[in-house]
Amino acid sequence: MGAPSAEPTVCTHSQALSRRYRAVRARTEAVCAPLSAEDCAAQSMTEASPVKWHLAHTTWFFETFILEAHQPGFQAYADAFRVLFNSYYNGIGEQHPRASRGLLTRPSLDEVQAYRAYVDRSLSNLLASPMGDNPAVHKLVELGINHAQQHQELILMDLKHLFATNSLEPVYSEATVGGGQPAPTMEWLAFEPGVRHIGHNGGGFAYDNEGPRHRVFLEPFELASRPVTCGEFKAFMADGGYARPELWLDAGWDAVRAGGWEAPQYWRQEPNGEWSVFTLGGRRPVDPAEPVCHISYFEADAYARWAGARLPTEEEWETAVNEGEHHPGTFLEAERLHPAPAQAPGSAQLLGDVWEWTASAYLPYPGFRPASGAVGEYNGKFMVDQMVLRGGSFATPADHIRATYRNFFPTDARWPFTGFRLARTA
Amino acid sequence: MGAPSAEPTVCTHSQALSRRYRAVRARTEAVCAPLSAEDCAAQSMTEASPVKWHLAHTTWFFETFILEAHQPGFQAYADAFRVLFNSYYNGIGEQHPRASRGLLTRPSLDEVQAYRAYVDRSLSNLLASPMGDNPAVHKLVELGINHAQQHQELILMDLKHLFATNSLEPVYSEATVGGGQPAPTMEWLAFEPGVRHIGHNGGGFAYDNEGPRHRVFLEPFELASRPVTCGEFKAFMADGGYARPELWLDAGWDAVRAGGWEAPQYWRQEPNGEWSVFTLGGRRPVDPAEPVCHISYFEADAYARWAGARLPTEEEWETAVNEGEHHPGTFLEAERLHPAPAQAPGSAQLLGDVWEWTASAYLPYPGFRPASGAVGEYNGKFMVDQMVLRGGSFATPADHIRATYRNFFPTDARWPFTGFRLARTA
Amino acid sequence: MGAPSAEPTVCTHSQALSRRYRAVRARTEAVCAPLSAEDCAAQSMTEASPVKWHLAHTTWFFETFILEAHQPGFQAYADAFRVLFNSYYNGIGEQHPRASRGLLTRPSLDEVQAYRAYVDRSLSNLLASPMGDNPAVHKLVELGINHAQQHQELILMDLKHLFATNSLEPVYSEATVGGGQPAPTMEWLAFEPGVRHIGHNGGGFAYDNEGPRHRVFLEPFELASRPVTCGEFKAFMADGGYARPELWLDAGWDAVRAGGWEAPQYWRQEPNGEWSVFTLGGRRPVDPAEPVCHISYFEADAYARWAGARLPTEEEWETAVNEGEHHPGTFLEAERLHPAPAQAPGSAQLLGDVWEWTASAYLPYPGFRPASGAVGEYNGKFMVDQMVLRGGSFATPADHIRATYRNFFPTDARWPFTGFRLARTA
Amino acid sequence: MGAPSAEPTVCTHSQALSRRYRAVRARTEAVCAPLSAEDCAAQSMTEASPVKWHLAHTTWFFETFILEAHQPGFQAYADAFRVLFNSYYNGIGEQHPRASRGLLTRPSLDEVQAYRAYVDRSLSNLLASPMGDNPAVHKLVELGINHAQQHQELILMDLKHLFATNSLEPVYSEATVGGGQPAPTMEWLAFEPGVRHIGHNGGGFAYDNEGPRHRVFLEPFELASRPVTCGEFKAFMADGGYARPELWLDAGWDAVRAGGWEAPQYWRQEPNGEWSVFTLGGRRPVDPAEPVCHISYFEADAYARWAGARLPTEEEWETAVNEGEHHPGTFLEAERLHPAPAQAPGSAQLLGDVWEWTASAYLPYPGFRPASGAVGEYNGKFMVDQMVLRGGSFATPADHIRATYRNFFPTDARWPFTGFRLARTA
Repeated sequence: MGAPSAEPTVCTHSQALSRRYRAVRARTEAVCAPLSAEDCAAQSMTEASPVKWHLAHTTWFFETFILEAHQPGFQAYADAFRVLFNSYYNGIGEQHPRASRGLLTRPSLDEVQAYRAYVDRSLSNLLASPMGDNPAVHKLVELGINHAQQHQELILMDLKHLFATNSLEPVYSEATVGGGQPAPTMEWLAFEPGVRHIGHNGGGFAYDNEGPRHRVFLEPFELASRPVTCGEFKAFMADGGYARPELWLDAGWDAVRAGGWEAPQYWRQEPNGEWSVFTLGGRRPVDPAEPVCHISYFEADAYARWAGARLPTEEEWETAVNEGEHHPGTFLEAERLHPAPAQAPGSAQLLGDVWEWTASAYLPYPGFRPASGAVGEYNGKFMVDQMVLRGGSFATPADHIRATYRNFFPTDARWPFTGFRLARTA
Repeated sequence: MGAPSAEPTVCTHSQALSRRYRAVRARTEAVCAPLSAEDCAAQSMTEASPVKWHLAHTTWFFETFILEAHQPGFQAYADAFRVLFNSYYNGIGEQHPRASRGLLTRPSLDEVQAYRAYVDRSLSNLLASPMGDNPAVHKLVELGINHAQQHQELILMDLKHLFATNSLEPVYSEATVGGGQPAPTMEWLAFEPGVRHIGHNGGGFAYDNEGPRHRVFLEPFELASRPVTCGEFKAFMADGGYARPELWLDAGWDAVRAGGWEAPQYWRQEPNGEWSVFTLGGRRPVDPAEPVCHISYFEADAYARWAGARLPTEEEWETAVNEGEHHPGTFLEAERLHPAPAQAPGSAQLLGDVWEWTASAYLPYPGFRPASGAVGEYNGKFMVDQMVLRGGSFATPADHIRATYRNFFPTDARWPFTGFRLARTA
Repeated sequence: MGAPSAEPTVCTHSQALSRRYRAVRARTEAVCAPLSAEDCAAQSMTEASPVKWHLAHTTWFFETFILEAHQPGFQAYADAFRVLFNSYYNGIGEQHPRASRGLLTRPSLDEVQAYRAYVDRSLSNLLASPMGDNPAVHKLVELGINHAQQHQELILMDLKHLFATNSLEPVYSEATVGGGQPAPTMEWLAFEPGVRHIGHNGGGFAYDNEGPRHRVFLEPFELASRPVTCGEFKAFMADGGYARPELWLDAGWDAVRAGGWEAPQYWRQEPNGEWSVFTLGGRRPVDPAEPVCHISYFEADAYARWAGARLPTEEEWETAVNEGEHHPGTFLEAERLHPAPAQAPGSAQLLGDVWEWTASAYLPYPGFRPASGAVGEYNGKFMVDQMVLRGGSFATPADHIRATYRNFFPTDARWPFTGFRLARTA
Repeated sequence: MGAPSAEPTVCTHSQALSRRYRAVRARTEAVCAPLSAEDCAAQSMTEASPVKWHLAHTTWFFETFILEAHQPGFQAYADAFRVLFNSYYNGIGEQHPRASRGLLTRPSLDEVQAYRAYVDRSLSNLLASPMGDNPAVHKLVELGINHAQQHQELILMDLKHLFATNSLEPVYSEATVGGGQPAPTMEWLAFEPGVRHIGHNGGGFAYDNEGPRHRVFLEPFELASRPVTCGEFKAFMADGGYARPELWLDAGWDAVRAGGWEAPQYWRQEPNGEWSVFTLGGRRPVDPAEPVCHISYFEADAYARWAGARLPTEEEWETAVNEGEHHPGTFLEAERLHPAPAQAPGSAQLLGDVWEWTASAYLPYPGFRPASGAVGEYNGKFMVDQMVLRGGSFATPADHIRATYRNFFPTDARWPFTGFRLARTA
């Protein structure tokens, strides 16, 4: 991925983007390298997509929003792909039924790779041409790159869900290794009341949902220095956490009973009473020092109630990132593929390791306007009945996450790489 | 309901409460007076309850939380009722399955009336006794009275839903009469940016979810002077409102298609192309001047997007009530049983006529703590995946509603008496 | 119901039918006498109907197929009833949704009684008129009378299902009393191989599905002298009957697990380990001598496999009725409202006490043709995916049942009054 | 498949079986040859299985019932496969959830091929050893071979269903070519009344469900000389066949409406009004001369009612095969992969081309006993709520079908290769 030696010292924005494009595309392929065509084709639930579909959809994104729109005479790779790999853009047209993505044994993985290569060539050509030297194109390429990065994490999430349904418990990568040392003690970090500015200030890339920057008033609050660990969560379980309705939201209690929840997703109690967890590196004992992961909003909320605390709002969380030093956590590049214990006392892991559920519903900021055109469906139309998560996980590329980044999932989702930290009103 | 002449000029808090208790109980019975035992027994969907169940449950509330807790030696009317009429209080114990409330042909309506009389006598006795002169009891009676008032509206909501399933289109009461005059022009009311205090300040009764009072920062905004009318909503429909996905949240568009929505709940297009609406007074033509009603959050949100506006947050809405004159609308006592057109230009109907969807998710205020004990399940455990509605409707008792009152329903609910007004970021 | 003394000794067919009509209608009303309007209005599952609906539907049957068709100038009681009380006759027109029959709080029970009276008068008038002296009319009245009798049993079945959902366990009638004496020993009755004639021979009333009479060849077989008792069924349960997949049809095993079946419908294991059963006379201990009742086809089949036997075919069963003496059992008129133990050794209870599952699918006999017109939908269109039951139950009127009568239910139905007897291939 | 010249003239039963085993296994692999690993891994509905699963399950059958039972010291290929590839044999143990067979990206297709090779070697060794010279082993190998042949057809059925969900409409094999000539005129073949012997007489292989041979009495009947063609079925469609409830069984009419059926499965009306059909050779125009295929029992029954006829019982059908000359149709070996038009007048296609729905429920013959042990679950436990089909299809190996063969499917199944012929009572 390094720049070849003959590269001139200064490069244009188009050239820089093109290089970044190639690097991100290569990273996606590296993420999929350990997988067979069969692994890439299956879909374990409606909410998850086959890896092959991710590979094609992120390609379709560049083809549809950039090449078809900005490259005169561009020939689509295959007409049928317009429908097959359109996720949810009604402004573009019809979509293959989401629940049936796993039935697409054709196009084959080989053909999807050919599709990727075709679009890679076409996009490189566009960026190398005068037509590519266009801020609108640059902005869309930037968006497409971030979109591809998001799907790198989704690929790992969805694959883990698939593999977990297989009693053979396939290993994606042996790389993951457990810790050993205990987690540092959790401390409460205090924040003053007052007006804060929240949201992206416009420098560098951000999704539309991160703005407009606006003011909020925060009453005094305290935030935990690090996420809740597996060891702490086991104490909640041992205290009957999953069996006491008074700790749960009403809908959460329904979810516990309907789903038969007794532990985080992917945990299993072994005959000796110990808990193991299925990871991308296979099944292994639960490490008490690691941030707990694969937790629904309901479980995070119930734990917080049990602990006499609450979850932070997204504004509190963002303020904590803005107003102090903090140790970053693990990102995709570490190839750890699992949350790691915090390394030292003090504010840690706000970024990386696990997405953190907040107490905030995913709603537009004051004055929010989605991007115009079909690409405006990226974020805005999902602003209801979901909760905001912040900070990225071990599967998020390090240069993809930032303080203002707003991720979102429904309250019962457990297959994302989700954990949480506590807050309290001072 | 008038005070008998021998009543002393000054009455104790217990006496006043007792009088208010009797008045509210009598109002509930007046609401049910036009109904047969059969009308009172049926349940048209899981979310709605039979009228008889409402009559018994609101009685159970007084029996369980006050008489059983505070009247030594109190004998419950019937042990089985503890389960049958417990709505959702896990802290009290088991509950009859919600979806099967309509199968309770026993106890009969007559027996439920006897149950009511028994509890009425018992509560009057308690309040007349020294044991009743207890702030904890007073607080719970106050809560029970408000609870009974809430159920007066629920009775009408649920009954309307039931009657609407019957092709005979039964008339609950002939009293409802349409308007005739056009609605006053909608105006935009402007509000300055700044910190506001939101939530109940502690004087008089409020539910726990209305507090604690706290500060928020509001960016400048404008609010419509009155709710959106049926006439305005018909323009949205005529412009393809229900057929254009770009106007809808993704989950809203799913709801439109799954439900086959083409108009507000209870509307029907007649062979001549005109729209009629089923009301508690029977079917009649849609009056364009009335606030549109039986609208889901999704429809309100889609209309706002179509209109280039948005829904107000609950804090904006509450600020508008606090910071200006406004004409109140229609309440239960008017016995109109249907929203009425605004009567004059200017800020109107913030209270009364239709509950107004806000853009705010139903979440706890900073520092919120539910009441302790099982009664704490009243509001707090529902604080997820619902949206806040404000202001009360034509079916809300006038003395039950206030500026800080937070009602809440899921985003697809259409059987409550729900409408909305527009807002925009200045 | 007896003929008044002034009645002439000879009466016409019309007069006799008219008298029988009144008697059967009166019996239906007697069956409903212990019930409140509320009891009559509720519907506990889609397959069961409210008592009020039965009262109206059996009236609609006479109105639609006889009065509207054969009484010139007949005025329907209410146009809306054509749809509300049409069960499934597509040849007549639209139907109120089956699952929503319990929401019809209007028409009230009083109005349904008025409807009944109106049709009673009209039908009596027709039969007293020259127009009523018509074999086509007589045939339809006879059909309508049998239809009404069938619904007498359905009313009790559906009501029992409804009452069983109510934790108050309402008592329909105190009349039911248990037995005490043990059941007579079961004997095997042997039958020779050979050709038999099966089906109705045309004398007296029969449904269309009982013919044409035709020949079958029966290999030698043996039939149990009486139905399987509760005591015998408890032995099956004690031997792990509900926990051993090898005893069950595949679909039956699915039903066991999906339904959590551990005993016949309405049975409950008490804290002391004994079994009780909910009856129309309330809950009481299971009497081991009684025929087991509320058994699905799957349970009957599994018991038979466990017992090293099988269920009889309907032709074997019918042959047994034709070729030997047998003691009849209990019918509706006994008002026992529950199966009774067999009274003596020898062939018993082929008719009465419990419907007996056969090993025969409900299919047309060779040469079967349904009655012409919409009334032909009575039986023929249900000839698929159901099993034949024979012999009637304690809730069947004695003059309604006969050797050729073919009842039918799906394999998982447990709310009818169903039991079984064993057979084996010699 | 012919014997090589060096083969000795006499071979043992074990040798003959071993040769036949290898030939059938090779045929299965030939059936799968055109497919990618991705094609082999997907599952398009719970009732259908991935090709890879079929390949493994038919192998598991030999491993479990023969090698594990009869080869001392046999080492299973992989313990986990015992569960993964057990279809429904409770007597063997647990099963991987049927609906999740398509999620088994591991074992890979390559590994399943290795599994097949391992079992092939082991079985050849067993048959070549003295232990293999055992009638019990021979019987089970014969059963396993027939089982494998059955799955050859299931592979094509399930694959066709999968490919049909893909808008790319993949082509399995180009070999299929349409006809051109019209179908011969349908004639009625008459049969005398009397006692017939039905069922397998014990010579050669038959499934347990084909016996015991027993007597039935058949009233006089007539049978169509050939199956109903697409052209004839289009006449039914043109006459409103799918829109007239009076032609349908009640459950069939429900299926029509629930499924939106307007034509046989895989048919589509093109913009020009003509009908096309998706085949294993891709989409092509409907050939009016071909037997109609992918028809549910309900559709066959409705067509027969429309035509003033009925479906034959299985005994009538079997009698027709026994009592006259008939031209066989197309089998798997023809590699046509689609039904072919009848070639000449007279009784035709009783065997081959399309499975024929009969009017008989799938129930045990008098005296039926399933094979003992877990292998007895093969057929017997499915004897309820299904209908019998007879005669095999274009996808059935020619030496797999016979006059007594009883296939069975639920009444709404459309993905098997199902058609029908008419009968009538004389």
